[in-house]
Amino acid sequence: MKEFELIEKIFTPLAKSPKKIKSLDPNISTKFDSLCLQNDVALIELDSKRNLVLSKDLMCEGVHFLKSDGGFEIASKLLLSNLSDIASSGATPLCYMLGFTKNNSLPKKFYTEFGRALSKIQNQYNIRLIGGDTSNSKLLQYSITIFGVALKDQLLLRQNAQNGDLIFVSNAIGDAYLGLNLKLKNSSNLKTYEKKLLEKHFYPQPRTELSKQLLEQNLSKCATDISDGLMTDLTNICNASKLNAQIFLSQIPISSSALKYLQKNSDLSKLDLLSGGDDYELIFSVNPKNVNKIQKLSNKLDLALTCIGKFTNEKFTKKKYSKKFNVFLFNSPKNISPDNIINLNKKGYEHQ
Amino acid sequence: MKEFELIEKIFTPLAKSPKKIKSLDPNISTKFDSLCLQNDVALIELDSKRNLVLSKDLMCEGVHFLKSDGGFEIASKLLLSNLSDIASSGATPLCYMLGFTKNNSLPKKFYTEFGRALSKIQNQYNIRLIGGDTSNSKLLQYSITIFGVALKDQLLLRQNAQNGDLIFVSNAIGDAYLGLNLKLKNSSNLKTYEKKLLEKHFYPQPRTELSKQLLEQNLSKCATDISDGLMTDLTNICNASKLNAQIFLSQIPISSSALKYLQKNSDLSKLDLLSGGDDYELIFSVNPKNVNKIQKLSNKLDLALTCIGKFTNEKFTKKKYSKKFNVFLFNSPKNISPDNIINLNKKGYEHQ
Repeated sequence: MKEFELIEKIFTPLAKSPKKIKSLDPNISTKFDSLCLQNDVALIELDSKRNLVLSKDLMCEGVHFLKSDGGFEIASKLLLSNLSDIASSGATPLCYMLGFTKNNSLPKKFYTEFGRALSKIQNQYNIRLIGGDTSNSKLLQYSITIFGVALKDQLLLRQNAQNGDLIFVSNAIGDAYLGLNLKLKNSSNLKTYEKKLLEKHFYPQPRTELSKQLLEQNLSKCATDISDGLMTDLTNICNASKLNAQIFLSQIPISSSALKYLQKNSDLSKLDLLSGGDDYELIFSVNPKNVNKIQKLSNKLDLALTCIGKFTNEKFTKKKYSKKFNVFLFNSPKNISPDNIINLNKKGYEHQ
Repeated sequence: MKEFELIEKIFTPLAKSPKKIKSLDPNISTKFDSLCLQNDVALIELDSKRNLVLSKDLMCEGVHFLKSDGGFEIASKLLLSNLSDIASSGATPLCYMLGFTKNNSLPKKFYTEFGRALSKIQNQYNIRLIGGDTSNSKLLQYSITIFGVALKDQLLLRQNAQNGDLIFVSNAIGDAYLGLNLKLKNSSNLKTYEKKLLEKHFYPQPRTELSKQLLEQNLSKCATDISDGLMTDLTNICNASKLNAQIFLSQIPISSSALKYLQKNSDLSKLDLLSGGDDYELIFSVNPKNVNKIQKLSNKLDLALTCIGKFTNEKFTKKKYSKKFNVFLFNSPKNISPDNIINLNKKGYEHQ
């Protein structure tokens, strides 16, 4: 069963009807909301003004990391990517639970480094571990459930894009994917730009400040982080918001490190970066009237915020697009027509 | 690294200092409490009267279940054992998140049966799925994070046993362990009592009503469910409450099915049942003055509640007991002395 089929057929029916427990003591009751499983977060009501924002992630050996990556690197990626889920919703992170597998093939250092990474990130983001579970397993798998708090009307959600909104991304995309590519080559004597790509692979940077500012300045209500690839994550926004997207290859920002890497590795192109996951940069929607404010925010945060296209009701009928809502990729805004759609073989990471 | 060492050295320091986020907007802040990682649950404050009660579990193929157990059975055990964590704290279950691995070796029926079990239990316990994550993995591993709500002063916690309190268990212990033993034998043509043992292995029964009554009638403030074995879980209470326990083999309740199974399988004895996990029966402390009320409660719930010993400051110095607080097992209350301590080779399931 494919991932989307599993979610649609098995899990979505289990998440229907946000409800209040009525049959029990009314004191022991609070509302919750799965947001139709369309976001990385779910909500439990704290009080009339605030929601607890929850997210849960799995990370599996051989899929998300290699045992040889080391305890510090694995723990960093695990906690930072979960912080990114909270950050991309605009919530303030609070605490987390950890599901931890172990096995006897690991040296003690693996565990102490794992703990050292968690401790460092905890202090940086002012969060704490509050619980979890441990088990033995031949194959390492970790799970974090992370909790944040947000005011009720202050959330960035995938379903909130509007027709005509511009699509922005933070910083640059593809570095983490190239870092993974580099890691699998197992090279030594890395050059500075290569080290930067590896760093981006292991240490994603949750865009906490950006999402807070987007909400505070009322510049956006819709965002997601890029965990499965720009094309896949943008398609998620499209499906949740019931809109299509047009994006332009020439406008998609990549870093100077990525550019150098692509120049030296002719088997890869910029197109590959659109499907590469793990960037944890933000994709967000912006009403065209707010473009100047986004420019100011970019300067204030010293963070590139680049328009890569727009959300639209418009459909480009090509038979190979079977889904209802799609991301259409063109070279540039100058030649938008069905004949100029660039087809990607792979839209992003999907757990088949 | 052993499980207790991992928790003590790596995780407990990460869980120190329940805190309130002060440096941020005071509207976006709430208290939380790891309970020093000494319980299966942690707390996040909802308001001045109520806590959200959280628990997170991992279940791994080859450790907690076999792929051949089937989707319905695996999902049932997963969700029911998590409900037991919430129930044993006295909280009312609300909703849950699911971390779900899949792989291509599984038939579609596995997934639909998995969903059917979750749906059945959701309706039974009035809870809903609110989110989660899916990933591919060669080895199946599941993780649930479950949420309940409790009034602040109404919680059953491991640290609340008092010197002199009696130790009670619900129903009978060991059925689930014998069910596992039976499952691994892969027998066909099961007799009725064998089917009962298998059922107990796959379908634990959260003791929701019992824990609620214990709190409402003010009969106990201390309980845990038996997930890793009576000896291990009772030792957890001892360590959290800084007390020792004396328990009596002759008083430990086992079912008629277990008795029959032991009679037919001479390689197993009642002693083995003290270390067998997965029963999810409740161990709880009771002030001796309330024994009559427990008897009435047992009648009301039609559920056996059996005194198996007591919590005590008393120490029995035997060198092989290296830990600070211990469970001392005797045959009966008639012969309590260091010479009559029954030693178990294995105290319960520990993830080495």
